[in-house]
Amino acid sequence: MENFVYHNPTQLIFGRGQLAQLEEKARLLGPTVLLVYGGGSIKRTGLYDKVIFLLQSAGCRVHELPGVEPNPRLSTVNKGIELCRQEGVNWILAVGGGSVIDAAKAVAIGVPYEGDVWDFYTRKAVAQEALPLGTVLTLAATGSEMNRGSVITNWETQEKHGAGTTFPAFSILDPEHTFSVPRDQTIYGISDILSHVFEQYFTHTAEIPLQTRFAESIMKTVIENAERVLTNPEDYDARANILYCGTMALNGTLPVGVTTDWATHSIEHAVSAIYDIPHGGGLAIIFPKWMRYVYRENVARFVRFATEVWNVDPAGKTDDEIALEGIAATEAFFARIGAPTRLADYGITDEHLQLMAEKATPFGPIGQFKTLTSDDVAQILRLSL
Amino acid sequence: MENFVYHNPTQLIFGRGQLAQLEEKARLLGPTVLLVYGGGSIKRTGLYDKVIFLLQSAGCRVHELPGVEPNPRLSTVNKGIELCRQEGVNWILAVGGGSVIDAAKAVAIGVPYEGDVWDFYTRKAVAQEALPLGTVLTLAATGSEMNRGSVITNWETQEKHGAGTTFPAFSILDPEHTFSVPRDQTIYGISDILSHVFEQYFTHTAEIPLQTRFAESIMKTVIENAERVLTNPEDYDARANILYCGTMALNGTLPVGVTTDWATHSIEHAVSAIYDIPHGGGLAIIFPKWMRYVYRENVARFVRFATEVWNVDPAGKTDDEIALEGIAATEAFFARIGAPTRLADYGITDEHLQLMAEKATPFGPIGQFKTLTSDDVAQILRLSL
Repeated sequence: MENFVYHNPTQLIFGRGQLAQLEEKARLLGPTVLLVYGGGSIKRTGLYDKVIFLLQSAGCRVHELPGVEPNPRLSTVNKGIELCRQEGVNWILAVGGGSVIDAAKAVAIGVPYEGDVWDFYTRKAVAQEALPLGTVLTLAATGSEMNRGSVITNWETQEKHGAGTTFPAFSILDPEHTFSVPRDQTIYGISDILSHVFEQYFTHTAEIPLQTRFAESIMKTVIENAERVLTNPEDYDARANILYCGTMALNGTLPVGVTTDWATHSIEHAVSAIYDIPHGGGLAIIFPKWMRYVYRENVARFVRFATEVWNVDPAGKTDDEIALEGIAATEAFFARIGAPTRLADYGITDEHLQLMAEKATPFGPIGQFKTLTSDDVAQILRLSL
Repeated sequence: MENFVYHNPTQLIFGRGQLAQLEEKARLLGPTVLLVYGGGSIKRTGLYDKVIFLLQSAGCRVHELPGVEPNPRLSTVNKGIELCRQEGVNWILAVGGGSVIDAAKAVAIGVPYEGDVWDFYTRKAVAQEALPLGTVLTLAATGSEMNRGSVITNWETQEKHGAGTTFPAFSILDPEHTFSVPRDQTIYGISDILSHVFEQYFTHTAEIPLQTRFAESIMKTVIENAERVLTNPEDYDARANILYCGTMALNGTLPVGVTTDWATHSIEHAVSAIYDIPHGGGLAIIFPKWMRYVYRENVARFVRFATEVWNVDPAGKTDDEIALEGIAATEAFFARIGAPTRLADYGITDEHLQLMAEKATPFGPIGQFKTLTSDDVAQILRLSL
């Protein structure tokens, strides 16, 4: 185990009807709030009206930043920053999925910063201050509700980068708010959660038995609940289990004392910076190909993955065979739940392959499990076509 | 899964040499500190000198509350409170195990409170304010380094009670600080950690697959590392794994959405309030007897415990047989690592059995897995003689 510092001050408020706690939170955080949301699904479901009612009951003036995109854009973030400054906003409430929360985080750190908020994403600056942020999560996927991460796309430069920003002060997670998530978004969320665990599970760090078992616990729980939520989108317990897994997959619990990878996320960001495909869809395509490309760096880890997570029977097989069977089981799972399996499913050809490979490695080689140059990335992308 | 709120603001600073971070923390927390510690083992190991050096380098004036007892006493806490008030102490640093931290927490909430600090432990008051508290942990056991709990013994009334107090602002956990823990204390710590998991694992709450797997992950990791640390007390990785398990066992991760039990802790507190036996020793004795007394309330849970944690082969056995084999494996484990197995090991007879049963149920019946009256407790204690 390596040295680590763990600190996560987000208050997680989980369960049926927990939205009611928003009113008291709003009273404490100040009279002027920026409400950040996406394409309007929260208006269709009635969540928007409930949130507005609670904010107004708390005496808040509500300004709005609607229309946050699935890959949230810097231009939208800048609009939010300007609005906050004009209106003297005290705090921000994000209602939606990871994209909405990521955009809200960018606004929160952008407001007190004198320079360009994109500086944080290009590693020119580190966030020191932020407006307080609360979230009401409507999608099990990114874990953004309980971490400092934020991923923003700059369309002018066709770049998609992540940065450490600010923890939400609180996040309200009601599994019922995810009942209406469409089938494809549910699938992408599941792929995203599993991918987060993969990034932190495939490591060379030794002596991390608890971290390893926690990661396997999340993967098994997601896998056994995935088909339940797809069969019955209003299965409260299955939605709750997936939602809780999504948070635990990326709230800092898994990587303590572990060298993590994150190459596949960089590759996917490069793809969706050019093609604007869903993040979870891209990950479902690329991750198994990454696995095939790198597994020989630590076959034992992939053998454990195969036997513990996918119940591969090791009897009479070589380690290589067991490892590959685990990877095949991963692919089969993604196919079974209806995730895309090839870039061709999104009409992506090899046209911009080299460009994507370059964009995936803007600061040099990526990954820790196996260090990948842009040539390696190009090969993984080719396997993914 | 039940509704829950999770919030844990403690910063966990883990690993070799992390004590160095104390100096910066001290600078931020103020110039006058109360150093709380126990029987002086930190002087023998040299940790005391290192801590004093770092505090003085940070410009702190250090006042001391030494001699905190293994079952920390209200009288000691009151001494600390008085000292803090006299000297205008800004913050408290606990260096030691759970008892030292628990006493420091009691002092931290006692200083700003006008009434008797014992009020918090008899449920007459709820802590609202506290002096900031940091900890340097030297023993893997109670989890007190990353939760709000504190257990204090009032010798005047022969009562031992727990209360919710205050989270440490930071806790420094260096596995090397646990190298010198004597064999018996190491065993008690292991028993304490496993007992914390048991209290949160045996439940009737349905649909908690991730919480269940996390609990099993901790139990398996403790069990596989226990004999390693006993064989080689300076095995860094084994000490690190146990230390991290101790924190995760009681930092609020396991009970989210779960109805937990805690009857066995109440029973043990009653025993050690009268006989002043080590908490972990008492738990190792009583827990398997509690298991035998209650397992029929939810045999399926005990079957899972037997097969997942102890690898009991279920083939050809009834559920009852599998459950009992798991309980027997628990007893065998405690015996194998050298934990006490009967109250007689501490010279305890049935003399005060009824008194202990009454003291274990001061506010009425205890436990959730099976609600226990003082008569039930008396039977469990009789099984433990």
